[in-house]
Amino acid sequence: MGRLTRPADPVLFQLLYEPQLASDRRNVLPYLLRIDAAHVVMLAGRGLLALETARALLAVNEELRRRLDADEAVLPAPATHRGLYFLYEQEYVERLGPQVGGAAHLARSRNDINATVARMRLRDQLLDLLADCCELLETMAATAGEHLETTMCGFTHEQPAQPTTLAHYLTGVLSELTRSVDWLDQAYAAVDCCPMGAAAGFGTSFPVDREEVARLLGFRRVVDNSADAVASRDYAVRVLSALAAIGVCLTRLATDLQAWAGPAHGFVGWPDDLVSTSSIMPQKRNPFVLENVRGLSTEAAAALVKLLLGLKNTPFGNSVEVSLEALSSLWPALEAGSKAVRLTRLLLDRLQAFPGRMAAFLEGTQATMTAVADMLVSRHALAFRTAHDAVGRLARETQGSASAAELRAALEPILERLTGRRTTLDEAELRHCLDARACVQAAAHGGGPSPSAVQDQLRSLARRHHRLRERLRVRRARATEAEKRLRDVAAEIRDVRFQGL
Amino acid sequence: MGRLTRPADPVLFQLLYEPQLASDRRNVLPYLLRIDAAHVVMLAGRGLLALETARALLAVNEELRRRLDADEAVLPAPATHRGLYFLYEQEYVERLGPQVGGAAHLARSRNDINATVARMRLRDQLLDLLADCCELLETMAATAGEHLETTMCGFTHEQPAQPTTLAHYLTGVLSELTRSVDWLDQAYAAVDCCPMGAAAGFGTSFPVDREEVARLLGFRRVVDNSADAVASRDYAVRVLSALAAIGVCLTRLATDLQAWAGPAHGFVGWPDDLVSTSSIMPQKRNPFVLENVRGLSTEAAAALVKLLLGLKNTPFGNSVEVSLEALSSLWPALEAGSKAVRLTRLLLDRLQAFPGRMAAFLEGTQATMTAVADMLVSRHALAFRTAHDAVGRLARETQGSASAAELRAALEPILERLTGRRTTLDEAELRHCLDARACVQAAAHGGGPSPSAVQDQLRSLARRHHRLRERLRVRRARATEAEKRLRDVAAEIRDVRFQGL
Amino acid sequence: MGRLTRPADPVLFQLLYEPQLASDRRNVLPYLLRIDAAHVVMLAGRGLLALETARALLAVNEELRRRLDADEAVLPAPATHRGLYFLYEQEYVERLGPQVGGAAHLARSRNDINATVARMRLRDQLLDLLADCCELLETMAATAGEHLETTMCGFTHEQPAQPTTLAHYLTGVLSELTRSVDWLDQAYAAVDCCPMGAAAGFGTSFPVDREEVARLLGFRRVVDNSADAVASRDYAVRVLSALAAIGVCLTRLATDLQAWAGPAHGFVGWPDDLVSTSSIMPQKRNPFVLENVRGLSTEAAAALVKLLLGLKNTPFGNSVEVSLEALSSLWPALEAGSKAVRLTRLLLDRLQAFPGRMAAFLEGTQATMTAVADMLVSRHALAFRTAHDAVGRLARETQGSASAAELRAALEPILERLTGRRTTLDEAELRHCLDARACVQAAAHGGGPSPSAVQDQLRSLARRHHRLRERLRVRRARATEAEKRLRDVAAEIRDVRFQGL
Amino acid sequence: MGRLTRPADPVLFQLLYEPQLASDRRNVLPYLLRIDAAHVVMLAGRGLLALETARALLAVNEELRRRLDADEAVLPAPATHRGLYFLYEQEYVERLGPQVGGAAHLARSRNDINATVARMRLRDQLLDLLADCCELLETMAATAGEHLETTMCGFTHEQPAQPTTLAHYLTGVLSELTRSVDWLDQAYAAVDCCPMGAAAGFGTSFPVDREEVARLLGFRRVVDNSADAVASRDYAVRVLSALAAIGVCLTRLATDLQAWAGPAHGFVGWPDDLVSTSSIMPQKRNPFVLENVRGLSTEAAAALVKLLLGLKNTPFGNSVEVSLEALSSLWPALEAGSKAVRLTRLLLDRLQAFPGRMAAFLEGTQATMTAVADMLVSRHALAFRTAHDAVGRLARETQGSASAAELRAALEPILERLTGRRTTLDEAELRHCLDARACVQAAAHGGGPSPSAVQDQLRSLARRHHRLRERLRVRRARATEAEKRLRDVAAEIRDVRFQGL
Repeated sequence: MGRLTRPADPVLFQLLYEPQLASDRRNVLPYLLRIDAAHVVMLAGRGLLALETARALLAVNEELRRRLDADEAVLPAPATHRGLYFLYEQEYVERLGPQVGGAAHLARSRNDINATVARMRLRDQLLDLLADCCELLETMAATAGEHLETTMCGFTHEQPAQPTTLAHYLTGVLSELTRSVDWLDQAYAAVDCCPMGAAAGFGTSFPVDREEVARLLGFRRVVDNSADAVASRDYAVRVLSALAAIGVCLTRLATDLQAWAGPAHGFVGWPDDLVSTSSIMPQKRNPFVLENVRGLSTEAAAALVKLLLGLKNTPFGNSVEVSLEALSSLWPALEAGSKAVRLTRLLLDRLQAFPGRMAAFLEGTQATMTAVADMLVSRHALAFRTAHDAVGRLARETQGSASAAELRAALEPILERLTGRRTTLDEAELRHCLDARACVQAAAHGGGPSPSAVQDQLRSLARRHHRLRERLRVRRARATEAEKRLRDVAAEIRDVRFQGL
Repeated sequence: MGRLTRPADPVLFQLLYEPQLASDRRNVLPYLLRIDAAHVVMLAGRGLLALETARALLAVNEELRRRLDADEAVLPAPATHRGLYFLYEQEYVERLGPQVGGAAHLARSRNDINATVARMRLRDQLLDLLADCCELLETMAATAGEHLETTMCGFTHEQPAQPTTLAHYLTGVLSELTRSVDWLDQAYAAVDCCPMGAAAGFGTSFPVDREEVARLLGFRRVVDNSADAVASRDYAVRVLSALAAIGVCLTRLATDLQAWAGPAHGFVGWPDDLVSTSSIMPQKRNPFVLENVRGLSTEAAAALVKLLLGLKNTPFGNSVEVSLEALSSLWPALEAGSKAVRLTRLLLDRLQAFPGRMAAFLEGTQATMTAVADMLVSRHALAFRTAHDAVGRLARETQGSASAAELRAALEPILERLTGRRTTLDEAELRHCLDARACVQAAAHGGGPSPSAVQDQLRSLARRHHRLRERLRVRRARATEAEKRLRDVAAEIRDVRFQGL
Repeated sequence: MGRLTRPADPVLFQLLYEPQLASDRRNVLPYLLRIDAAHVVMLAGRGLLALETARALLAVNEELRRRLDADEAVLPAPATHRGLYFLYEQEYVERLGPQVGGAAHLARSRNDINATVARMRLRDQLLDLLADCCELLETMAATAGEHLETTMCGFTHEQPAQPTTLAHYLTGVLSELTRSVDWLDQAYAAVDCCPMGAAAGFGTSFPVDREEVARLLGFRRVVDNSADAVASRDYAVRVLSALAAIGVCLTRLATDLQAWAGPAHGFVGWPDDLVSTSSIMPQKRNPFVLENVRGLSTEAAAALVKLLLGLKNTPFGNSVEVSLEALSSLWPALEAGSKAVRLTRLLLDRLQAFPGRMAAFLEGTQATMTAVADMLVSRHALAFRTAHDAVGRLARETQGSASAAELRAALEPILERLTGRRTTLDEAELRHCLDARACVQAAAHGGGPSPSAVQDQLRSLARRHHRLRERLRVRRARATEAEKRLRDVAAEIRDVRFQGL
Repeated sequence: MGRLTRPADPVLFQLLYEPQLASDRRNVLPYLLRIDAAHVVMLAGRGLLALETARALLAVNEELRRRLDADEAVLPAPATHRGLYFLYEQEYVERLGPQVGGAAHLARSRNDINATVARMRLRDQLLDLLADCCELLETMAATAGEHLETTMCGFTHEQPAQPTTLAHYLTGVLSELTRSVDWLDQAYAAVDCCPMGAAAGFGTSFPVDREEVARLLGFRRVVDNSADAVASRDYAVRVLSALAAIGVCLTRLATDLQAWAGPAHGFVGWPDDLVSTSSIMPQKRNPFVLENVRGLSTEAAAALVKLLLGLKNTPFGNSVEVSLEALSSLWPALEAGSKAVRLTRLLLDRLQAFPGRMAAFLEGTQATMTAVADMLVSRHALAFRTAHDAVGRLARETQGSASAAELRAALEPILERLTGRRTTLDEAELRHCLDARACVQAAAHGGGPSPSAVQDQLRSLARRHHRLRERLRVRRARATEAEKRLRDVAAEIRDVRFQGL
């Protein structure tokens, strides 16, 4: 650093470099080691670095990696410093002298390295997150599958609407979640491109082979333009958008489940190991995990705001604002999102449904009135609006618990008033309309809750879940193989030395 | 509305129904007419509506459409009402009597209709927005193509970094924008699914043909699950996320252009019809449109926050909060986004570049020092870090305007101090390093600004732009054809009548 | 505009100037007229403008104002233009010739005028909004006052917690809302400062009297520093923050009311003119206005994001991005916020409470178990944790509907097991603990629901509401008087002319 | 916890309880100890706890506090648990037996304790943050005071506008920052209220003295209503809003400073210990800290979004979503905000201004053209618009570097063309207009940059800074004294024992 004559100001050191180093050792160094190894292997392959030099560098690299894996101390920090990267370089210079230890740094920069570390780190976290998501989707599908016939009151505007099943509700939520997880999966592809070779953002005059570096690091492709490579973080917008969409959907599911877990509904519940009690109210069984889910689920949205705020009005080029600050909320948001997903999975897996409470609740709700109106259309040829109007009056004049006979007695005069002619209703037919389970069976069209229709939806979703799993498997395999290959290639180069002796 | 005995409270009418109706006439009614026609055609086709009834309904529908297209008054609003949909129904009942006029309303609900209107409206706006985006991408590519050799100082941290070209910079931005427009284009597919048939969110017992309705409305597919159909708005999250990503990228481009348009840089400018002056400062030429772009570009991000806030902790089912309120910022954000895109296109199309100012600026910046360090590596076998260190000292000790001879005189002693041996530098070689145009030509690797490398990038982007255009063309055609087909089928049914007489 | 040789590009005209003019005629022109009049009056008073000139200018000003008030056309727009301000100036020049018509424009700029218009417009809207808020607070207090004894189940984690009253709950919400309205009221003071005199942001060499202009426009004080005057919009951050806080509190109130309005609880409801029914489900009575409230309440938060995004990384000086774009969401957010406040007021004013349903619900909830534990502490000297533990077991082993006798029979053995000694419980005392109304009466400490305690809280809040009202009255009076005074002073100057003749 | 029969599920333990405990030991336990002590002291004072019991409890409390202060291990966590609070209680029971160890828990709940901890923790952090802010304001005022005569080009729309001084610019920013810090200071008062006594949110039947608890904990007042006490977090909205306002203002300052630190302007700079170089570009001196400032400054805005999202549609009562999750981003945002404030202070403190570069830049900018127009008004009685028009043409026809003689030669014919009469300009006067320093001296009105005007502004700001400091001092003193008093009172109670023996 010949350009500067003084170390960092102590305040900078305390507020920026020191806390950053602690985090970088954990989150950056493992990737830096791999990137450095890949770069050296490539340079050697292109003749840009003497084989002897490459060997020496890779040996140090390998040793550092081993120590890091073994949780041993590496890169001791002096009383003041300018961050991990310069400590890392310094280590090589100290061990190998400036001519060998300082040789690897051509055709690269902290800019492309930082950009690459961020993508590798995100890639790893996304693989875990996507696996969590797959678990959630599969568990949700299984839970739905168990409740195809679990008849429940459906709601709109938080008022009883029409009979449905727990399966139908869950499959609706699952449909949205599956789309959003697919979306997150597509975002993975946007992450999976390698910026190495871009150097400071202006490429290099050294004839590097960036495709080779990309392959050694397990990337599917390179980022074509070097300005794009260091300046853009649109992949993070994609990831956080998809995660925010997943999150907001989970808050909706949790909101419904929490309402239904209250004693007023009593439709669902959880065993004692998933609820808490109160420090003051002895009777309490609180399904509090739903509240963690609701809270954790919003973090991606806020992190997205941080990212967009962070990128806004920045130059399109490398800057700390973009490469470090704008991404600062990404990492905790991924962790929060993963927790929300895993906790929801747990709650669905252990969900207790109480069909008796569901049936009892339906009794008093008039939720089958649409079926009565539909029957007036199909059996008595009324226009739907007329039928609806008549049944609306009926609903006003009777109780939710009225019997078919009572309803008939009330409805016939209403119909006469409205249509000017007498209509004789069939009490058995009316009773059938009032039967929530029969309504559910009948609702076989337009994506309704009829068990067979829902089963079809679940089958179609299962195929999508399977494809997600398969893509995930392939990606993991590619990442693992690349890591192995890099070690093998590096080992080969290192071993030449001993053969050579 | 037999259930309710009183009209809306006057405050509700004033704050909600009345302003909403004004907007709905413009934005909802055209789609409602098409949805209604498609529903009636389908019902008639499935035998759920007598042909005679369908004819009468479609005739009114056709007349309303014609009047609307001709900007004539339709659906006169009484002193109080409950919104467009009930006025719409009322119109049919008044014209055709309750038995015919009220017949179409089976197997549907405001819930699935609203959900369908929102998607159709968004689909139309997206087609326009995507066309605007294609224009922007193509104009940007053309502008970049004109400046492959326009050598300019590249910046990192807003400090001179290395020589680049205007084309390289623009191609970097274009690469990100192309990805984000692709992303927006994918979001279109998420929008393009039809919720009709879901009714209130619980499907229907009438054997409707929702695939037919979807086809008649130009949708690619139906939404499988009826709860999903009325409850989810994830497609809007996708659209706004992609638009927010485009927007934030435009703020970065505008930030750079505005900095470069200042007299301190003077790299670019615009003619008088694209700048403004001041009401007080007579000398002013303000490229103010860049500030509109920066401002308009942020609206999608804020609308996304509105949407996520709007969806958070809502029941997964139909509600006004989701179907109306959560989307309220979507529409103005699409308009703002479209303006930002079109204004940016205009600014790029009319951009004046001043290569002389660019070259003059480069002179004093030491932006070619990396080339000097690279040369020390490749010609004098220094380790890069040593070379970098030496040139750093050189940069400290000399001016940006120093000649090759002066630099040689300064650098040789530095090298000797650092390496302990004498290095003799070739002045011509050094002069070549200091030549920004030569640096640009040399930066042919890692996605650098060498003209031929950038041209390759532009070719690859042009292929993507072509594919975008092609998809857009197909989508527009599908929408247009569906609209035509619906009119034809409806006309056929209406015409049967006259044949029948 | 001698600097520029060409009119605005047609695209600029179509996308920016034309739509802006339509809005500016309504929202800017009335304020521009007042500012212009005050500026001319001040210039004349300081001898910076000949009285004759001032007279002529004020006569045109007065005429324009009258026409605007009478809804007559003013400032006809030519086929192309550069916005309202230049049209406004042009009108004077055309009427009075350049020497008189162009005379008022010294020591001012669009920059300080725009900054002043925004504050005046916001001031007016805030006065209305604060009046709406006062109505809400007073209505809420009145509703609470009617329900001091309306015993209800209190909830935590959406599970029954302890007995409370509707009044206690509402007073809790009211306490927060009162603070936030106070906060909004403080934000008014931040708005109420006059930027005039700052000109383009660098003050002026003309010896203007900016305090006089401020007084004539009804401002409490001037903005000291001219850069601050044109660059800062922190007052808008304050207004939107306070409104966002009010909004999010309203979503919480609406969430509770909507849950309690469902048939599962049935605690509250509204008459037919405040609910809607369904187009398909005849039985429906949806309290949908709560959903509008929830949705409208989030708009301020999103507008705040827009504002912060809009300001981020802008130069601290005048720019379109700051003066126009950053504020673009402020205006619709104020309207949405006002609607949310007024609709909530309406819902509280017309709220129907059903104490019978509340009491019935409490029966089965074990919400009085804390009282049992408290009794064990105060009467039987148990440590609270032991008492809590014992009653927790009791709650597990018995039903919510268990009688005092049953509970005694179950609790005594539990106590013996836990403490190792026999405890004899008093059944009457136990019955008293189980009486929710008695629990409420007893909860007289720590801000609990005891009616007299809540009444005290309401009295204290009423004093704060009264002070708010009083401040509002004073502010309105100041604004009205300033407007009148400006007219009087301007009329005096105009009249001199006729006297002079 | 008699209600529950099973420990927490291992997944809950791993994802929620375990990581939370690690954080709670550091951030919650110190406050819990104080709250517990104050509660016990109050209970003893009211006769609700035997003195003997209070003594024993306070002795354990004191020992735990000492161990915590000494960084010794406390509250060993078993293999599974339900969080810090229950571990804390358990510790007392284990040491003192259930009858004494479990005695303190009456008339309180985790709900009011959590609410109190959050406010105490925030109070402490705000005191530090406010002290940082005061430092920033004072440093900024000092830096401004040093540059009252440092003449600089002022900008609007990033184009040269009029001459100003560095002091004038900084004082503008300082004016806004001072308001926002005042606002943050007011938010402190909102935080400084004590929720203890609210228990679960429904108060208590035990005759507690909550004012005494508040005093012992250093709070200025209690929260009146117990529902409000546990449910509301509006104080956090206030704090984050004010911090977001400060943050966005800092991004604007940093944006300007970074532009001016580029070689194109070269107005300002920093010594080597505040800049960084590049790992690839040897010439680099990057003022990168400005980018950290810009990034860190946005975190409060994003945390505010998290908070508002977290609160939206939650019941107004205690929940994990509100008490824990909604606040989760508050704490890191306070830290980021503090860093941004301290780094900005450092940069201002060490700012190097280069008046020579500033003057040279002004030369070519025509930034004095407004002065020319003003002169035409005041000396030649032109209407301002005419003068502006003439000088606009002049600016078009001449260079920024034109001499007074050249301008005169160009301007006289323009004036003749425009006004139809000859005007003879005074060259000396014109030269005076072109003198940027003279312009600055003249700009003594409307808050302009004239040194004496700016000095007045700085004096007025200094008084506000002094008041801020004074309030801060009083608050710190109150907090310190309360902590001391609580220890004294607790010690007195503990000591009675030994006296009693």
